Formats: sequence, structure tokens, C-alpha cells
Amino acid sequence: MQKIKGTLIPIGGNEDKGIEDDEMYTQDFIEDGILYHVVNEAGGTDANIVIIPTASSIPVEVGESYIKAFATLGCENITVLDIRSKEDSESERSIELIKNANCIMFSGGNQSKITNKIGGSTIHKILVDRYKNEKGFVIAGTSAGAMAMASEMIAGGSASESFVKGAVKMYKGLGLIPELVIDTHFIRRGRFGRQSEAIAKFPNLLGIGLAEDTGMIIKNGNDFTVIGSGMVIVFDGQSFTHNNEKVLEEGTPMTIANMTVHVLSNGDQYNIKERKVSVLPIEAPFI
Amino acid sequence: MQKIKGTLIPIGGNEDKGIEDDEMYTQDFIEDGILYHVVNEAGGTDANIVIIPTASSIPVEVGESYIKAFATLGCENITVLDIRSKEDSESERSIELIKNANCIMFSGGNQSKITNKIGGSTIHKILVDRYKNEKGFVIAGTSAGAMAMASEMIAGGSASESFVKGAVKMYKGLGLIPELVIDTHFIRRGRFGRQSEAIAKFPNLLGIGLAEDTGMIIKNGNDFTVIGSGMVIVFDGQSFTHNNEKVLEEGTPMTIANMTVHVLSNGDQYNIKERKVSVLPIEAPFI
Repeated sequence: MQKIKGTLIPIGGNEDKGIEDDEMYTQDFIEDGILYHVVNEAGGTDANIVIIPTASSIPVEVGESYIKAFATLGCENITVLDIRSKEDSESERSIELIKNANCIMFSGGNQSKITNKIGGSTIHKILVDRYKNEKGFVIAGTSAGAMAMASEMIAGGSASESFVKGAVKMYKGLGLIPELVIDTHFIRRGRFGRQSEAIAKFPNLLGIGLAEDTGMIIKNGNDFTVIGSGMVIVFDGQSFTHNNEKVLEEGTPMTIANMTVHVLSNGDQYNIKERKVSVLPIEAPFI
Repeated sequence: MQKIKGTLIPIGGNEDKGIEDDEMYTQDFIEDGILYHVVNEAGGTDANIVIIPTASSIPVEVGESYIKAFATLGCENITVLDIRSKEDSESERSIELIKNANCIMFSGGNQSKITNKIGGSTIHKILVDRYKNEKGFVIAGTSAGAMAMASEMIAGGSASESFVKGAVKMYKGLGLIPELVIDTHFIRRGRFGRQSEAIAKFPNLLGIGLAEDTGMIIKNGNDFTVIGSGMVIVFDGQSFTHNNEKVLEEGTPMTIANMTVHVLSNGDQYNIKERKVSVLPIEAPFI
């Protein structure tokens, strides 16, 4: 497999302003700590950053809040690319912006809007191509923007009805990191069950649960480092000795034996291919 | 170690009527399915059942609702033992009732009330003695009544701030099953983090997360079978390759590598000493 040169930064989301259980009406704002890493990976404050608030139901407000947040860090080359239709993903302006950006930032909201309006488009192809081939090119995304990065995307699913077959709804994501299934707001919204079901469905994939104000910097399409103030929960199904997801009827509680779970925090590292944790020494400073 | 002859049935709680986040004001009601197992294990509808609603802030109402629920199953020998103080745990009536019961049922509420008012008392000693030595003697408990059964008891802890050292508060329980840490309402209240922290604190213990309307029948102090409509999540820390709980400062996110997790449902069995899952064949009927 070709070695990936770009950098991926999925983030677990931070602050919800709106109706709790409907990401359509959610606005995420990322603390400076995480955005600082995004800017740093993209080459510093001169980086050309393009915000895509497509997932959001209030894209104008979300775009403005990111311009402000990046400006606080000293960035001036910030553009909002407010894609609202498939046609917008084919426009000359969109293509130019994606071609010239050092960093793309997908906002939170509803992840299906990202895949419906951008998936399969010309800018999607450019994104994939630049991510594979250009060192220093960064694709970041928070909440829905993070969830859309993988190939198998959690599109919805109740937390309270979890661990019951059929509670999680899966769709196709942008395919940037096909080895993962990414979930966000993981701790506050109690999303352990739907991630377990996703991994029971796709036991060869690695389940990632990002807490709020927490992200990971993925390099080589394989090695990630945890950033932010919370934790990343990793679900590994390769150790399963039993998994009845395939044979159960919908609505039936699942049985899974021997899932391996890691709880990782700031500075901890993980090798996806080798399924190997490298934890930060306790005396190391916060990164 | 002496082989235990009695039966323990911890239950995850069912229906909350009251203020969501404060178990002081919570009333649990168990569906007939689970109570049927309790009655069956205690010898059938002639069983002498004693309800202890001590954990509850509305013990009279809770006692009455259990009398009704057991009556629906055909039981007539139901007594409510409304212990409200340490002195009540030493009274002649209390001692007589505990000595003559086939089954004790602890209600939900606040688990610390159970350990404060009953822990160390004469009736506590009789309960332990009968549980150890009498085949057919059943101790059941729902929610707080289940959590109080182990030696290391989760007394409180926020779900949203979990995976951060110090989020879980531990106290001493009744010591009936010292190998476990039991948590309840596990799925709906998203209690994965506090159980993970509890197991990081006591990595030799087995963490049990009971969903609502779900319980387990524990025999020999070692072998359990899942009953009810939901699932039991098992956290096994013996596979940890990293666990920084002991050295972290309070309020810091934890790192845990290689925790083993099982998701068990109706009919699945587990051997605590051998840490071994035996799952029910897919074609088996609901028990």
C-alpha cells in the first residue's frame, strides 16, 4: 500500500449550543489547544485554511466562529467554503480553494450532509489525492467532520438502546482512513454501545471514541497521537472469541466476548496496523 | 476458600420515577421476568420473601410496590422490613425476619444508606452466614441494592467527567461477593467511565455493568448466568499492560491499555475465578 503523506486530525467536538440529541442543531467550538495543533501541523499561522461548515444547519455562524478562533491564534488566511449542494462541490471556486489550501477544517453538524454533498465530487477526489501525496497537507474535522473521515461512518444511533442489534446506522464516509470507525462526543453522550455494535459489524476495523476537546493527529495513515484535554477510547475487535452480530435478529441484545479496549490520553500513541499502544511516560509534559 | 451455597441476584434497576441524576429520589420497579427468577431460585411462590427498602427515600411506597409485584407472581409471604437506622438492624423483629426468610430483596435508592444502616450489624452477620451456608437462600437487590453487594462499592461518580482520576467515589459494601465491583443502570446512564476507573483502582476485581431490566444469578460465589432483556458488560483488568491510576493526580485523564471487555446477554454464563465466558448457542430459547 502507498504510504500516506498528509495529516488527518479528527476531533471529538466540544461545546453544544442547542438541542442535545440532534446534531443538526449543534454548533461545535474547539478550544485553542486543539486548533493550535491544527495550525501547527498545517505549517503555522501563514497557513491557508479553508473552513467547510457543510455539516452545520447554521453554516454562516459556524464559519464566522472558526474565523474568529483561528484569528485568535494569529491566522489571517482563513476562507469559508460554504458548500450547500453537490453542484457547489463542482464549482471552480471550490476546486481552486481546495487545491490551494494547506488545511481543510470540517465543522460539526450532521455527517450525512458532508457525504451527500461532497462524497464522490471533484473536490472529494482532490482532497483524497492531496491527502495521499502531499506532506504538510492537513484535513481536520470536528464532531460530524471527524465522523465523516472513515469509510464506514456512524450516521446515527441511540445511546440508550445500544448493544442491541440495529441500534447503530452506518453509511459510507469519505474514505480517508478506511481502517477506523470514528465516533465523537464519546463520553458525554455515552456512545460505547453504538461503537461496540459498529465494531461487531466490522470486526477488522478499529473503533475510535473521541471525547470532547480531544483529538488525534494521524500520520502515515497509521500512527496517531492523542491531543487535547480528554481521552480517546479504542475498541479492538481482533481479539473477539465470540460475536453473534451476523446471526442475531434486529432488536436483540448482542453477545461479544473478549473485546480489547484502550483508554488513551494526551501524548499517548497508537500504531493502527500493529494494533499497538505506546503510552506517554507519566513525567512527560502536556503536549 | 469455603464454597458458597447461597444465591446472589444483582439487578440493574428498571424504571426511574423522579429526578434523573439523584438516586435518592429514584424508585426502581423490576419486570416480572426478573422477579420470576428471584422467586424461582428462592423455592417458588411459597417462599418467605423479605423486602428491605432501606436505600429508598420513599421506603413505604417502594415496599408496597414490591408486595404488589410479588403478589402478581402468586407470592403471599411477603414482608417489608423498613430499616431506617442502625438500631433497626439490631431489633428482635429484624433478626427474626432475616433468620426465617428464604429470600431477601434490597430495593434501589442510595447504596450508602444500606451500608451505613445495615453494614456491620447483627442482621448483616446473619445475612452473610446464611448466604455462605444455606443452599436455596437468595439475596437479591436492584440498583443500589445490587451495588451494595460487593466489598468495593461505587458510592457515586459523574458519568460525564469519567475516565478522569477521582471521578468515582468508592466505599465499603456488604462484602457478599468481594470479587466484583457492581454498577447498575449501566447503559442508559453511560457509566463505562466510572467502572473503568473503579477497575483501574482495583485491577484484580471484575467490573460488572448491569443494564436496566437485566440481572445475573450468581451460584457458588463464582458462576453467573445473565437474566433479563438487556446486557451485562464485564470489565476485566487482569489483561492490563498499562494503568497509570496509582500515579496520576486527581482530575487528570487516565491511560489504560488492554482492558478486556465482554458484552453478555440472556443465558450467557461466566466463571469469575477462571475469567471465562460461556455463551449461549444462538438457537437457545430466552431464559
